[in-house]
Amino acid sequence: MSVSKARLQSVVRLSRTVPYSKTMVRSFHVSCAVKNSGNVPTPRNKSFFSRALEMAEVTSSLSMLGAVALFQSLRRLNNSSPKGKSGVPKKNIVVLGSGWGAVAAIKNLDPSLYNITLVSPRDHFLFTPMLPSCTVGTLRLPSITEPIVALFKGKIDPSNIHQAECTAIDTSAKKVTIRGTTEANEGKEAVIPYDTLVFAIGAGNQTFGIQGVRDHGCFLKEAGDAKKVFNRIFEILEQVRFNKDLSPEERARLLHITVVGGGPTGMEFAAEMQDFIDNDVKDMFPELQKDIHVTLIEAAPGVLPMFTKSLITYTENLFKNLNIKIMTKTVVKDVNEKNLIVQKTNPDGSKAMQEIPYGMLVWAAGITARPLTRTLMSSIPEQSGARKGLIVDEFFRVKGVPEMYAVGDCAFSGLPATAQVANQQGAWLAKNLNVEGKKFALHERIQALEKQLGEKEAPSQVAGLKQQVEQLKLEPFKYHHQGALAYVGDEKAIADLKLPFMKKMLPLQGIVGHTFWRLAYLNELISARSQFMVLIDWLKTRLFGRYDAKV
Amino acid sequence: MSVSKARLQSVVRLSRTVPYSKTMVRSFHVSCAVKNSGNVPTPRNKSFFSRALEMAEVTSSLSMLGAVALFQSLRRLNNSSPKGKSGVPKKNIVVLGSGWGAVAAIKNLDPSLYNITLVSPRDHFLFTPMLPSCTVGTLRLPSITEPIVALFKGKIDPSNIHQAECTAIDTSAKKVTIRGTTEANEGKEAVIPYDTLVFAIGAGNQTFGIQGVRDHGCFLKEAGDAKKVFNRIFEILEQVRFNKDLSPEERARLLHITVVGGGPTGMEFAAEMQDFIDNDVKDMFPELQKDIHVTLIEAAPGVLPMFTKSLITYTENLFKNLNIKIMTKTVVKDVNEKNLIVQKTNPDGSKAMQEIPYGMLVWAAGITARPLTRTLMSSIPEQSGARKGLIVDEFFRVKGVPEMYAVGDCAFSGLPATAQVANQQGAWLAKNLNVEGKKFALHERIQALEKQLGEKEAPSQVAGLKQQVEQLKLEPFKYHHQGALAYVGDEKAIADLKLPFMKKMLPLQGIVGHTFWRLAYLNELISARSQFMVLIDWLKTRLFGRYDAKV
Repeated sequence: MSVSKARLQSVVRLSRTVPYSKTMVRSFHVSCAVKNSGNVPTPRNKSFFSRALEMAEVTSSLSMLGAVALFQSLRRLNNSSPKGKSGVPKKNIVVLGSGWGAVAAIKNLDPSLYNITLVSPRDHFLFTPMLPSCTVGTLRLPSITEPIVALFKGKIDPSNIHQAECTAIDTSAKKVTIRGTTEANEGKEAVIPYDTLVFAIGAGNQTFGIQGVRDHGCFLKEAGDAKKVFNRIFEILEQVRFNKDLSPEERARLLHITVVGGGPTGMEFAAEMQDFIDNDVKDMFPELQKDIHVTLIEAAPGVLPMFTKSLITYTENLFKNLNIKIMTKTVVKDVNEKNLIVQKTNPDGSKAMQEIPYGMLVWAAGITARPLTRTLMSSIPEQSGARKGLIVDEFFRVKGVPEMYAVGDCAFSGLPATAQVANQQGAWLAKNLNVEGKKFALHERIQALEKQLGEKEAPSQVAGLKQQVEQLKLEPFKYHHQGALAYVGDEKAIADLKLPFMKKMLPLQGIVGHTFWRLAYLNELISARSQFMVLIDWLKTRLFGRYDAKV
Repeated sequence: MSVSKARLQSVVRLSRTVPYSKTMVRSFHVSCAVKNSGNVPTPRNKSFFSRALEMAEVTSSLSMLGAVALFQSLRRLNNSSPKGKSGVPKKNIVVLGSGWGAVAAIKNLDPSLYNITLVSPRDHFLFTPMLPSCTVGTLRLPSITEPIVALFKGKIDPSNIHQAECTAIDTSAKKVTIRGTTEANEGKEAVIPYDTLVFAIGAGNQTFGIQGVRDHGCFLKEAGDAKKVFNRIFEILEQVRFNKDLSPEERARLLHITVVGGGPTGMEFAAEMQDFIDNDVKDMFPELQKDIHVTLIEAAPGVLPMFTKSLITYTENLFKNLNIKIMTKTVVKDVNEKNLIVQKTNPDGSKAMQEIPYGMLVWAAGITARPLTRTLMSSIPEQSGARKGLIVDEFFRVKGVPEMYAVGDCAFSGLPATAQVANQQGAWLAKNLNVEGKKFALHERIQALEKQLGEKEAPSQVAGLKQQVEQLKLEPFKYHHQGALAYVGDEKAIADLKLPFMKKMLPLQGIVGHTFWRLAYLNELISARSQFMVLIDWLKTRLFGRYDAKV
């Protein structure tokens, strides 16, 4: 009773915390009036239609939330951890990495066949497609990152999860050398032997040898990168707010956000940044909104090459309307503390150098092999000629190295370096490894029986087992492209969908695309926890904006 | 259609993410079986009853969430900012501080009577009663902090909000000197004149001159403190996990969490810490759960002096069951990097010194006047004899200083230094200041009229106005104690309620107390945003635990 009473209070209190809207009906009139007077340029309070959409979104989000919450609540009624069938001989598998390939592999590995050890410099899996949303607070990093220990609770013993980087692999002795990367084990070295090695360390950032990028720019690959971008944005906004004595040039420079790379990552960051300007800078730094702007720089003649033409045109027009500048055929030659030095190719084909002053540089210009990968490529004879990553066959066996497999961006399979590919590769590899594991277990049993029963008896007994072994076959990898997605700003997204019964891609755009974008990613998120938290973040952003205190 | 389909998918996906529970019914059996076998000591998966409670909580939280979300969604249909009546002469008021007193004052000030300027070293208001929950991730800091700019949007111009600390007050020239505290304005000095000054800078931490507390301990007063504690906890857990070669003594030392101060803050932190151990350490650092423990140290003979006896006994017993050690009559004499040096008073009255090795020290042993406050106390003759804070009258006028008011912990009013007191004082002060403001405005109009109409005409005209002035009276402050609340762990809380129709306090405890604790604070939270985010955090903690990736 006191409960319901107090809850009532709290609701009443809410209406009290609603200062300027008397009644629903009235405020509707107001908003329409405002709208018609056209004083409201930003997406946030646009038309009655978009309002209705918002209501729909809030309601549907809440119902989804309900679903997640109740499912989880039931789930936690029984959170015992699984046990592998005991007695079966297991192989020791070491997985290097905690990205899409590694996690997909471990999720599909049968713990009754393998003792799993994981080595990664970070303590979490990152849902990379949503990283751009974290740069401006649309989502929060904890919502799209999953602690490895929690993710594989009951599957990998915490003491077999090493927060460390692999510094060397002895492929003949089947040992990896690792070095700790957290404050607690910093620099501590250890050697771990393996029967099977899964190499899924991903790739690094491609800077084309421009040192200035590392010194003055931000990447957009790891959780820490998004945090760095986020902090840098607020640093700039406060710099300009608190320093009234800035020269006009310096002020303009600081408020110029530059993005290099016209792929999904670069485009999505530009879009998120513009959303942040139109919604939150408008609210919290009103004096700066007009002057802060975003420029996207791409070396190729066009952006988002992987999408169908119509969607690219759609995006280019949308960016124009949102007033995000796109510079194509522009190659960044050098980066210093305050300027990008670029080479533009004019329509007539002539080239011209140009200096572009910038306040922030986000660098999303592709990937390159990590040092460890390069060392392997150069040290293993069979890998001579490997360029982007280790050469693997259709079973992900690293050419020239027994019992070593590579998936994701560190393997060269001819497929694009996307989460989708790495994810499918990891899962596929695990299924084959489970087959190998079963074979191994059966062989062990056969040997045991033969030793036990001796020459005569054994054959008849083990015939069945040997037959089983023969039936176990490895499947060569087949990639199933499901399509491409990208958020392009102002609550719009583009999607190329591969439908089973269609040859051509089905292109979606605008609000429909955005709804699909959200539901697709929500569905792909790795845990109910992430789904819950992402839903919440979207709701929070929608209702209260992205701006939080700096705590 | 694609929406509902995809949402269905997402729900289906959820059931897929529910690995080990086949059906609700079955898992109920399991959990009951587990319970009866008594292997499950922690609150998280206790009895069927607590399960039912969880369901109730989840459902009610979701409905409340719905209420907040929809209210907000309506609210944002119209988020225009208010305008003060133009033409009315205004006084310039400068408010120092952004805590309970300052914020309550500004919320109740009439912007049509005052130009408001705010000076505070932090950019946010902090809902202090919930700070202990942020030390272990039960709540997140952004949920209980409100950006000042957002909080007073439309009431204070962003350019009149200075993130800076006040270094000096010239009470005769009516000027304050401020110095910037953010990266962007660090060290920048400025001078701001005022007609009226509200002094609400709060108080600092009382360390009794023990330098070791500042060097090696953590406080629990600001948002940053909770963050420091949070990081320190994980630093310790990882230290022990990754360093297998620690000596047993060193390991035991690191895993010993000590809290100094038996007030609500200290007790609530101890409780939250124990919850974290029983729920999250159990999940994520299972090998450490048995060895990590909490000790609370209090100089007085008992803890929580402000509560009724029965509740204190209840709490002491609960702590015993949760296996939190309470050491009363124990005075901390010194603190070094690894040990607390304490003086214990034995039952027989004899005193004995003791060394207590600790891994973390949280210091919540009361407050003391800030340097600026002390400077004023010593420099103003009428303040001689002031000890805990500035001496004020029942209108919060600082004795000996015209047009300066003080509220909250920096003022000495004989009342306890609580959020409740500061909040009521700030609100009361604002009402009186609005009266002063109206008087001022009327005087201005009278003078204008007299000048305009001359000696003869004026009197008849201004008589009415003068009458109005006489009717404006200041109200001396009356404090209405509403009671005391404290969370004491294992989803239990204690509450002393002051009910209008009762002389004695109404004591609540256990789960009822906890429900009241939550609803009361939820109701007091300063914005719909905070209410929404706190509700979410509680749900998230309940469903998925406190453990997030370190990002």
